[in-house]
Amino acid sequence: MSASPYKQLEQEFKRLHAFRGALSLLRWDAAVMMPRGSADIRGEQLAALETEYHALLTSPRITRLLDRAQANLHGLADWQVANLREMRRQRDHAIATPVSLISRLARATSRAEVQWLEARHQGRFETFAPQLEEVVNLVRDKAALLGQALNLAPYDALVDEFSPGITTIDIDGVFKALSRRLPSLIREVIGLQDGRIAVPIAGKFPPGKQRALAVEIMKAIGFPFDRGRLDESEHPFTEGVPGDIRVTTRFDSADLFSGLLGALHETGHAMYDLGLPQEWRDQPVGRDRGMALEESQSLMLEMLVCRSRAFVAYLAPLLIKHFGVSGPEWNPENIYATLTRVRRSLIRVDADELTYPLHILLRYELEKKLLSGELAVRDLRDAWNTGMEQRLGVRPGSDIEGCLQDIHWAVGSFGYFPSYALGAVIAVQLYDSLRAEVGDLDEQIARGEFGGLFGWLRTHVHGVGAKVSVHELLKDATGRSLSAAPFVRYLEGKYLEGAETIAAA
Amino acid sequence: MSASPYKQLEQEFKRLHAFRGALSLLRWDAAVMMPRGSADIRGEQLAALETEYHALLTSPRITRLLDRAQANLHGLADWQVANLREMRRQRDHAIATPVSLISRLARATSRAEVQWLEARHQGRFETFAPQLEEVVNLVRDKAALLGQALNLAPYDALVDEFSPGITTIDIDGVFKALSRRLPSLIREVIGLQDGRIAVPIAGKFPPGKQRALAVEIMKAIGFPFDRGRLDESEHPFTEGVPGDIRVTTRFDSADLFSGLLGALHETGHAMYDLGLPQEWRDQPVGRDRGMALEESQSLMLEMLVCRSRAFVAYLAPLLIKHFGVSGPEWNPENIYATLTRVRRSLIRVDADELTYPLHILLRYELEKKLLSGELAVRDLRDAWNTGMEQRLGVRPGSDIEGCLQDIHWAVGSFGYFPSYALGAVIAVQLYDSLRAEVGDLDEQIARGEFGGLFGWLRTHVHGVGAKVSVHELLKDATGRSLSAAPFVRYLEGKYLEGAETIAAA
Repeated sequence: MSASPYKQLEQEFKRLHAFRGALSLLRWDAAVMMPRGSADIRGEQLAALETEYHALLTSPRITRLLDRAQANLHGLADWQVANLREMRRQRDHAIATPVSLISRLARATSRAEVQWLEARHQGRFETFAPQLEEVVNLVRDKAALLGQALNLAPYDALVDEFSPGITTIDIDGVFKALSRRLPSLIREVIGLQDGRIAVPIAGKFPPGKQRALAVEIMKAIGFPFDRGRLDESEHPFTEGVPGDIRVTTRFDSADLFSGLLGALHETGHAMYDLGLPQEWRDQPVGRDRGMALEESQSLMLEMLVCRSRAFVAYLAPLLIKHFGVSGPEWNPENIYATLTRVRRSLIRVDADELTYPLHILLRYELEKKLLSGELAVRDLRDAWNTGMEQRLGVRPGSDIEGCLQDIHWAVGSFGYFPSYALGAVIAVQLYDSLRAEVGDLDEQIARGEFGGLFGWLRTHVHGVGAKVSVHELLKDATGRSLSAAPFVRYLEGKYLEGAETIAAA
Repeated sequence: MSASPYKQLEQEFKRLHAFRGALSLLRWDAAVMMPRGSADIRGEQLAALETEYHALLTSPRITRLLDRAQANLHGLADWQVANLREMRRQRDHAIATPVSLISRLARATSRAEVQWLEARHQGRFETFAPQLEEVVNLVRDKAALLGQALNLAPYDALVDEFSPGITTIDIDGVFKALSRRLPSLIREVIGLQDGRIAVPIAGKFPPGKQRALAVEIMKAIGFPFDRGRLDESEHPFTEGVPGDIRVTTRFDSADLFSGLLGALHETGHAMYDLGLPQEWRDQPVGRDRGMALEESQSLMLEMLVCRSRAFVAYLAPLLIKHFGVSGPEWNPENIYATLTRVRRSLIRVDADELTYPLHILLRYELEKKLLSGELAVRDLRDAWNTGMEQRLGVRPGSDIEGCLQDIHWAVGSFGYFPSYALGAVIAVQLYDSLRAEVGDLDEQIARGEFGGLFGWLRTHVHGVGAKVSVHELLKDATGRSLSAAPFVRYLEGKYLEGAETIAAA
């Protein structure tokens, strides 16, 4: 007796999963290990594999098996029915984009990534602009085709690829609430912090020691170094698959915290991926539930956990141990003040919780305009710099601090940025429930124990995989729909702490 | 007008070339970067890609195109006709092995490679034996199928995969000549060297400095670090494709030369690959002409070039520069004596030119017996140790110095070993002609200039690609057929130098 159509599909998607893992490794290598001059060749390899992946996913055989499996769901478990839905989703997305476009995009983004690096070395956006324009044109074509096929607006179709089930309606709702409150809140908080004394933390912190510290904390968190790596790259990222997960960060010897928090942000992603349901690990239903949820996990670790008094209680002795530091600037309250310092700054990945969403709002606006054609690539620098000035009151002095800072557009990731801000919002909503249910969470974290944190997340988030939509997951885990309100309340509580006392004094 | 069948084939093989490059990178990463616990996952990725590569190469479309292109060679250039022959060769090899076997072999070798590493850590062959047995069984099946399809004996079919056109008749002819002369020559040379004083070179040589030295020499040789890397791994190897070529070695802080010569051996491979015809680089005719010729290039650099007085004249000042050494042991004549020291030793990759072929003869004998079933895997250690004692008069004190020293069988490379000894023989035959035609070769090498060397090799070996057979290439380059005689004469001349004087004195 031959395997059922559903079982045959599981086999096919297991193979596709292996392809995805290989592609991920090729990308990791390109960013971390590959010699500079080999980009063309890597581009050809990525194009060949992506084209083949696409051909396999959109083959008549898969379509036929999907139809036959759908016609007879009898005997399938819940997760298998959900798996079938996710298989079809992947196939529908893939079939909307022709092979030739996929392969041109792969080549163009491979070239653009190298040129982005080169432009950063030179500090000139012009060096990158032609390659970016090529990518924008191809992504625009893709968005149009995808939107048609999925019956979504072009930009929504791109968002749906990264964060299934999330639309510009969700994004605009959240972003409106954030625009309404954040600017005034930032003013208040900066005013409040300016009135307090914080001792500056300065010095030379050798990258090797920073790495050792990051590794020690990642181990405490549960990152498995026998099935994963930490490396350095131009821009922090996570690649790989559960079982071989690769995190990168960027250590700056003049800045003790940016490399560490970059690594911990990425560790948040890695822990999500590692917590995905093991028995479905090579199936679509066993994947993460999109990038907004991914970012909720990275930002939860970086922002909510690691920039807390509880975490600082764990961190402070480690800093003494690894760097042999001493002095008033190393007392926990001063470290906490440093980690929660709010500044109008230029670099997104180094931004604090309050200003971070405004960085995203700018990118969201710009990438929609780039795709609609309202903004030409050659005008991006000006639009960026003006936008930064309007939203955050700071103007980049160079392109590296401006429109060259992120890799996303170079690699064709349009529609990704909103997931960072949504992730921040979702993180708080989840964390509120988590804290309510794990009574001694802060005490655990202060001891460098992360079992309570990840136990809850595994049950309510990681272990769910892609079985339900992000909206359902949020409802199941927190009892409430997506809303910016908890995020705003959290920021007010954390950053205006003590404001009343001062006002009352 | 659609492309001709031949042109369509070029497109298909360009894609296959990209797949090969991706597979090579996955293997490089597995040996150099991959976390220990990720082998299963990598095995699945390699199996998925190899299976797909195989399916593409053996598709009815390729067969149809090959037949149509063959039917009309009109208008094709010489190299394109040769390309067509090589395409068919690859396809014939591939179609003889069913997909299921390819994919089982990929998984088995991936597991075996990890277990080989583990066994080396433990120093116990038993840890590796079950996985090796699995590999032997699968390779035996493959050899039988391949032999049937190609009308070759099973072992010859395996050899043909690595070194097209070479048979056991060639191997046995060469090996018989070597067995006849080497044992007595080794005795004479050791007797002669024992009678001379050589000051031992000892000390601690930090791997970082060894690496810097290797990099400086590789740069002088012409290795392009913007399109290649040097890393460390358990066993030296070369992976990648021209344009992204990756060489590894193993630095031992107690041994100044083994890491360097490992790197230079691999650089010999890399230089061959880099010198392949650029315009055919993604086509079968643009590939190397098999492993015997590959090894001739690595051994020529390691043994003929780098263990010469000319090279030592270049090397000696570099040793002083990198390690700040001084003393009588660092004079060129003593370094040369060290580099040409003949010893009955246990490790193939550290063996000298004279004893090296005997290491190969043993492996050749053992792997044929393993495949025929005459030798059981569980008896391999005994057979190895006894064979070493009989051939070289030394017996391994541990499996690491014995049957666990080479990675080849773990990764399924049976039929590969003979190419090392054939390569040594071919190297000398080529080098005789090269020296005759490049008048000031030694003077160039003594100045650290390698243009004359690689200029000749590019014209007569590298740039030929796979356009002609190895036998024709050798005839064209040297005017003579494959023969062990020049190799034996070379060894006698180099290693018995001064013997007459002593005898006459």
